[in-house]
Amino acid sequence: MKLGVCYYPEHWPENVWVDDARRMAEMGLSRVRIGEFAWSRIEPEPGRYDWGWLDRAIETLHRQGLGIILGTPTATPPKWLVDRMPDMVALDEDGRPRGFGSRRHYCFSHQGYQAECDRIVMALAERYGEHPGIVAWQTDNEYGCHDSAVSYSPAAAEAFRYWLANRYETIGALNEAWGNVFWSMEYRTFAEIDLPNLTVTEANPAHWLDFRRFSSDQVVRFNRRQANILRACSPGRDIIHNFMGFFTQFDHHAVGADLDVASWDSYPLGFLEQFWFSEEEKRSYLRQGHPDIAAFHHDLYRGCQKHGRWSVMEQQPGPVNWARFNPAPLPGMVRLWTLEAMAHGAEMVSYFRWRQFPKAQEQMHAGLLRPDSVEDVGGGEARQAAADIAAIGDAGPPPKSVALLFDYAGDWVTQIQPQGRGFSALRMAFDYYSALRQCGFDVDIISPQADFAGYRMLIIPCCPIIGADVVERLRAFDGPVLIGPRSGSKTTNLSIPAELAPGGLQQLIPLKVTRVESLRDGVEEQGEGFAISRWLEHVESNLEPEIRLSNGRGIVWREGSVRYLAGHLDAALLRDVIGLMAGDADMVVEDLPSGVRTRRAGMLRFAFNYGTQAQQLSVPEGAELLLGSARIEAAGVTVWRE
Amino acid sequence: MKLGVCYYPEHWPENVWVDDARRMAEMGLSRVRIGEFAWSRIEPEPGRYDWGWLDRAIETLHRQGLGIILGTPTATPPKWLVDRMPDMVALDEDGRPRGFGSRRHYCFSHQGYQAECDRIVMALAERYGEHPGIVAWQTDNEYGCHDSAVSYSPAAAEAFRYWLANRYETIGALNEAWGNVFWSMEYRTFAEIDLPNLTVTEANPAHWLDFRRFSSDQVVRFNRRQANILRACSPGRDIIHNFMGFFTQFDHHAVGADLDVASWDSYPLGFLEQFWFSEEEKRSYLRQGHPDIAAFHHDLYRGCQKHGRWSVMEQQPGPVNWARFNPAPLPGMVRLWTLEAMAHGAEMVSYFRWRQFPKAQEQMHAGLLRPDSVEDVGGGEARQAAADIAAIGDAGPPPKSVALLFDYAGDWVTQIQPQGRGFSALRMAFDYYSALRQCGFDVDIISPQADFAGYRMLIIPCCPIIGADVVERLRAFDGPVLIGPRSGSKTTNLSIPAELAPGGLQQLIPLKVTRVESLRDGVEEQGEGFAISRWLEHVESNLEPEIRLSNGRGIVWREGSVRYLAGHLDAALLRDVIGLMAGDADMVVEDLPSGVRTRRAGMLRFAFNYGTQAQQLSVPEGAELLLGSARIEAAGVTVWRE
Amino acid sequence: MKLGVCYYPEHWPENVWVDDARRMAEMGLSRVRIGEFAWSRIEPEPGRYDWGWLDRAIETLHRQGLGIILGTPTATPPKWLVDRMPDMVALDEDGRPRGFGSRRHYCFSHQGYQAECDRIVMALAERYGEHPGIVAWQTDNEYGCHDSAVSYSPAAAEAFRYWLANRYETIGALNEAWGNVFWSMEYRTFAEIDLPNLTVTEANPAHWLDFRRFSSDQVVRFNRRQANILRACSPGRDIIHNFMGFFTQFDHHAVGADLDVASWDSYPLGFLEQFWFSEEEKRSYLRQGHPDIAAFHHDLYRGCQKHGRWSVMEQQPGPVNWARFNPAPLPGMVRLWTLEAMAHGAEMVSYFRWRQFPKAQEQMHAGLLRPDSVEDVGGGEARQAAADIAAIGDAGPPPKSVALLFDYAGDWVTQIQPQGRGFSALRMAFDYYSALRQCGFDVDIISPQADFAGYRMLIIPCCPIIGADVVERLRAFDGPVLIGPRSGSKTTNLSIPAELAPGGLQQLIPLKVTRVESLRDGVEEQGEGFAISRWLEHVESNLEPEIRLSNGRGIVWREGSVRYLAGHLDAALLRDVIGLMAGDADMVVEDLPSGVRTRRAGMLRFAFNYGTQAQQLSVPEGAELLLGSARIEAAGVTVWRE
Ligand SMILES: [Zn+2]
Ligand SMILES: [Zn+2]
Ligand SMILES: [Zn+2]
Repeated sequence: MKLGVCYYPEHWPENVWVDDARRMAEMGLSRVRIGEFAWSRIEPEPGRYDWGWLDRAIETLHRQGLGIILGTPTATPPKWLVDRMPDMVALDEDGRPRGFGSRRHYCFSHQGYQAECDRIVMALAERYGEHPGIVAWQTDNEYGCHDSAVSYSPAAAEAFRYWLANRYETIGALNEAWGNVFWSMEYRTFAEIDLPNLTVTEANPAHWLDFRRFSSDQVVRFNRRQANILRACSPGRDIIHNFMGFFTQFDHHAVGADLDVASWDSYPLGFLEQFWFSEEEKRSYLRQGHPDIAAFHHDLYRGCQKHGRWSVMEQQPGPVNWARFNPAPLPGMVRLWTLEAMAHGAEMVSYFRWRQFPKAQEQMHAGLLRPDSVEDVGGGEARQAAADIAAIGDAGPPPKSVALLFDYAGDWVTQIQPQGRGFSALRMAFDYYSALRQCGFDVDIISPQADFAGYRMLIIPCCPIIGADVVERLRAFDGPVLIGPRSGSKTTNLSIPAELAPGGLQQLIPLKVTRVESLRDGVEEQGEGFAISRWLEHVESNLEPEIRLSNGRGIVWREGSVRYLAGHLDAALLRDVIGLMAGDADMVVEDLPSGVRTRRAGMLRFAFNYGTQAQQLSVPEGAELLLGSARIEAAGVTVWRE
Repeated sequence: MKLGVCYYPEHWPENVWVDDARRMAEMGLSRVRIGEFAWSRIEPEPGRYDWGWLDRAIETLHRQGLGIILGTPTATPPKWLVDRMPDMVALDEDGRPRGFGSRRHYCFSHQGYQAECDRIVMALAERYGEHPGIVAWQTDNEYGCHDSAVSYSPAAAEAFRYWLANRYETIGALNEAWGNVFWSMEYRTFAEIDLPNLTVTEANPAHWLDFRRFSSDQVVRFNRRQANILRACSPGRDIIHNFMGFFTQFDHHAVGADLDVASWDSYPLGFLEQFWFSEEEKRSYLRQGHPDIAAFHHDLYRGCQKHGRWSVMEQQPGPVNWARFNPAPLPGMVRLWTLEAMAHGAEMVSYFRWRQFPKAQEQMHAGLLRPDSVEDVGGGEARQAAADIAAIGDAGPPPKSVALLFDYAGDWVTQIQPQGRGFSALRMAFDYYSALRQCGFDVDIISPQADFAGYRMLIIPCCPIIGADVVERLRAFDGPVLIGPRSGSKTTNLSIPAELAPGGLQQLIPLKVTRVESLRDGVEEQGEGFAISRWLEHVESNLEPEIRLSNGRGIVWREGSVRYLAGHLDAALLRDVIGLMAGDADMVVEDLPSGVRTRRAGMLRFAFNYGTQAQQLSVPEGAELLLGSARIEAAGVTVWRE
Repeated sequence: MKLGVCYYPEHWPENVWVDDARRMAEMGLSRVRIGEFAWSRIEPEPGRYDWGWLDRAIETLHRQGLGIILGTPTATPPKWLVDRMPDMVALDEDGRPRGFGSRRHYCFSHQGYQAECDRIVMALAERYGEHPGIVAWQTDNEYGCHDSAVSYSPAAAEAFRYWLANRYETIGALNEAWGNVFWSMEYRTFAEIDLPNLTVTEANPAHWLDFRRFSSDQVVRFNRRQANILRACSPGRDIIHNFMGFFTQFDHHAVGADLDVASWDSYPLGFLEQFWFSEEEKRSYLRQGHPDIAAFHHDLYRGCQKHGRWSVMEQQPGPVNWARFNPAPLPGMVRLWTLEAMAHGAEMVSYFRWRQFPKAQEQMHAGLLRPDSVEDVGGGEARQAAADIAAIGDAGPPPKSVALLFDYAGDWVTQIQPQGRGFSALRMAFDYYSALRQCGFDVDIISPQADFAGYRMLIIPCCPIIGADVVERLRAFDGPVLIGPRSGSKTTNLSIPAELAPGGLQQLIPLKVTRVESLRDGVEEQGEGFAISRWLEHVESNLEPEIRLSNGRGIVWREGSVRYLAGHLDAALLRDVIGLMAGDADMVVEDLPSGVRTRRAGMLRFAFNYGTQAQQLSVPEGAELLLGSARIEAAGVTVWRE
């Protein structure tokens, strides 16, 4: 695995570039990402390009042997461009223009802006496409960051109408699909359709779902235009985009289909603070991040590229500036995160950023160097990680073991129609992932469209929309299948299937969900040694339940090796059910120490201690230790060959 | 009492209508409400009516002996109409148009839309007014739902100025009444007056109160226009509107004056979740609703029709979709709610809806049938309720016992000027109502304008504005009167009366409120065995307090049979005070088991168990049991003849 | 010290004025503020002045010997003026016009409105400037109340561009200062610059800081225009403005430079409720206010006038209307607050208001009289305070003891860039102030620009921007200096200094802050007998820490008599550190009873009991008691000559 760093030569005097490059190489880095926010320097005035500084920066880095990932600067169009086409900005859900002064101030549907992007990408690609220093391209930056994948602009409305006409062909078909007879929402022409925001009460969920699909498609199309230009002008270079954490505003499988390498930006501490984790988890993992945050995304984004090629484009190197609270990583965590990416098969981990920039929005975001150019803690840990990587050698391919199905449209469904506040298919996927990993399993998070062959177990935490083709392939799967609540509960157009939930999955297990209940926080339905909360389904079936609530209601249903969960299980019961399935699959459930996680890579097994206490690992007798020891310290990493 | 159901033939293929109608009748239903959201089907294009389907639907239902309540479709104007007059939509408090895509997207003050409503109502009334199947009309649907009774549109501003000119005649009178000299808010002409939203800090409370009065009057006027057309064209049919729960955006007494039957939409579980109830209440009554929610509205809306004619137009039949959390009713609750409405004198309970519609906004809202047409739990309970109603026979007239005064303008006052966060006249009314009912009393909730004759006790939880005529009638009342805090504290124009609070009520009890305190949550003033929270008044009087705080300050004041409460009493003290009054009135206070409520109807007494445990009732010796037994199960109903 | 009252003759019939004036004098008041909201009465129509009523009101008050403070009415422009120039209103951060209907509906940058203000102020000044009854002028009222110091209007944008051009001269200098190369935010001309609101994610913090500076300067300029007119036309009268509590939207030192007397509006109960105090503090001090709220502002605003002249223009006399909850002051508190102002050197305390006005927005705000003209509790306490003031006699000058540095721009920095939610330089200043006062110290809160001579100790709780000149003067200071976290951490343009934090302060103590951590609520770093929360800095230094965390990390650093705090200390450690410094300065730390605070004035010492229990004071042997006794009751005041 290679190490890299994000670098902004335009922020620093030219005379430090060469020293920076030298220090990067010396630290063990071999990749450097540049350029993705530099439009105002590349084209300071309309049509006047200033290539000189970039030529020199690329040359300087290249001379130190660094492979350059060049970003297209389309996430930050300069002010002169916005002033020329003021309607290029997105409108927010309240209808307010999202103005210039930070970044991502564009609407994916604005044709004028798309043309400008073609132009600047083409200019870059033509100039540097065949430069030997350029090893890859990054398209734009963090599509959708700051809620920017969705826009309520006139341009979006226009494009949405066109998209709908394409999808439904006749307005009657759309009215029928959405059920617009309800509340007299019927349209006579596609031109009558507005965006679903600013309605009196909630808009039709089918209207929302199509708008979310459309918005995702606009991102895919936007990315594809850049990818096509870059491929044409820069043969042999990887096309990469950097995804974000816990972010589902567009279909990453679809964007990933146009990429050579999927990458993501890993900020475990910031994500812990900003997402759904409990107060207790936020305190316990304050300086480490929840032990499954990084791995979840590694395994998710690996599944977004057809050959499983993926990287970490931005790795948190110290405190960041953007969470509500911003503590420093525990010493060792930057190295741990780096090696964990390796364990999951990353091609590269690139730190964000080289040197903390003392100005502007991210001045409180640490780098590998301090603003005064002294090496910061993260720099030292990167150096150590480079040595460790060399010591470990090649990690071997990721194993195929457990597949967990996650579908972006499914998450849109639960966002649009949570039915119980906070219900989230993404969170369900994370919870199931975490439970599996605590059992010592290696998990691939895959699209329902992906190939199931080779997996020993399939887990569907919550996929509301399951196509007939997927049902077919699930039936063909030879191994335990776990189906979580709400799976199969909706048709493509977000309606209830004629045969009720779980829809086509009834071909796997003969039961019907006749009623659902969402339960307020603090309400639990008790079973023996477990409790159900948040979500409870009433099931009609000739089957006998495998596990019941104390009141007799079935909660786990089984037909052969297929199980259906009629509620949101607590961790204890989820672990039990995984244990039952593992038994079916001849897999051994481990009981990892608290805060410890592991990952296999080829013949290697990596262990990571996210806790603040040392723990004892069960390293098999005779295993060859490549790193660390069976006693694993806080923030420690142990690697052995099995 | 009749049972009915809300039905949407336009949602289903015509070939199922006849079977649906047959099954309704078979279930014990004799009423069916239709049509209230069907404008886009009745008039698919401007001026082109399509009556065929509706003719056939009415005929099909009629043939099964079902009496039809036909709704006017004005809550859901079709898109073509909005596109023709885009300014017909309301503006929200932030000034944003409330767009098409759900329902209620109209401003009550828009004259063009009013004319369109006249036209469509006239068309319906002329076609079906004398059809023998039509037994009643519902005007529009849930006026004000989704905050829609109030609009900040130019049309509203214009109408408001006209309304003010009518009320005050001269701008000087308005300036004087509002106290506009304060902060130089004086106007020179009515044309200068804006709506009270979007001011720098809060607008003049008198400005707000008049705007709320105006907004309410616009609803009254809107409803009256429809009622007049329907009365003219459809003689002998009842005019009904369906009110909502805990909703005060317009004066329901005033709208009720134009109705033959007041009805409301009863969703006990949704209301429990969405309103002010404590976490503990929300958990205890999770699947039953708070035991006073349904009854409170029964007794409130009965008082909104001059002959006490009322119905439940929509009865929750299972889980709904619109609360934060949506659990299922405890088995038996749908039947319990039905019979409780009977006990309170309803003419009809109509379930919402016949069959769960698998598409659009309410697809997660249960019906009597599942989406697959199988009878759902609620269907079975409706069938049982029909049998029970037949078994009980005629219930006899509601008793006149305790009258609780509630005034919509009073609630607007506490909304506009809570003085302590969360203070609400509506909630005060509910709390007092609940306390009275736990004593076993039957309560009528009446307007201060209603006749007090025949009542044994009068309760005024919180009526800030009390007219001189009401004071006069209160003085003439011969029985205990309880006056809660803030009553009489404001003039008609929301100013402090010259004689201070309780204003004219000082003619009933000689005391003055010289100062008020609102107390933050968690702060209590202690008395012996009770505590005061939220609100505390300093009273000046020559009377001796009847009950004092531990610090000596008077909290309950008495003059003859009139009592004044100088604060927000806890449940214990409120019960004590009711006990004192009951003693004065020779009424017996009962101590009902937890979760149990009762209601008398003629010679019958109904008991309802909202708890999750069985309870023992004190059924008098020799009473004839018509339903259930003295041991009342969870969700149980017992009825006896006294 | 004089007592006064705020009076609105325009609210009352003329025939009560003379009686009101007589009663004021009889109560012991000698000052009366009038006129500040009376524009619509002074100029009821454009250009038509109505002076008659004001002539008579002034004459009536003057005849009773009351010195009149006449307010300019520019906080409440009348409706006709707004209708003539609708763009004079401010726009809020969302871009919505802040409409007419309350007060402060103007944008400080609107030139048309400024001209109107010149005109009305000139008219008033010319008419009454030399009237013998006029002793002072109040400019406008509470600049910035209701967030009104900041406007996002086109007028503000235009003025901001001009302001920036003045400050930076070239656009290149601005781009460089702000670091606009980051995210391609570079501008080509000043005309390209927008206001920093409504950006996609946060705008450049340097952009925000300049906008805050600009907005503050607009207030300064606005005030200066009025002051200049008044000075020219009304020689010998004091120019006053009334500041608010915990309010930092403009630089009060800068506005104060144009005033003869700084004054503020003291509402201890409302401020307790609305600001950051804990639930426990809000309950403990419910009817008293936190014991440091009033004193903090006394000592702050005294420092805002170059000769230390200051007053309380509005003193809470009873419950107010504007906090979430509005309890009544404990009996005695109105007197206590009055005498505390005297102890801190006020020239006047003026109560708000004479008589509770029964109409409009503040009808629930108590006065000295009730709406029915009966003297209210506050009236009696004012009368008592007048007697006490006479008994005490002249208090002597404020002592120079401890200086606490507070800088408005520093507070803007922590608002713009809290880095940990809720971090606030203002709150830091308050916390340190409270700790010092609990030690029995007398504190001056001063600008870093003020003279340090004569102080025995300097405290810098949190001043992120410290100029080189200040560093120079700090180096010259001969006494203990305490530097709190984040001090010196930013350059003038809100970037990280080249030498890292604490920037130039490294000349006082040789250490560098290499990393900062903000910690979520509930997270603590333990030391022996203390804990650090919220904020923790990593320090690099050759010094040995004076105090360490249990994990060895230095938390208090010392070089000679200069100390640096590398985190947010709890009260225990802060008190210890103050003790260490006091030792260096030969000052004695006292341990005042809970809820008790003291203040020295000349040879007098005042003690105030904010608790609800009586306490025993350590009055020195032989001290002469001028008021109260060593046993100080709840809400009690004791004064002795030392
Ligand atoms: Zn981002
Ligand atoms: Zn509704
Ligand atoms: Zn104010």
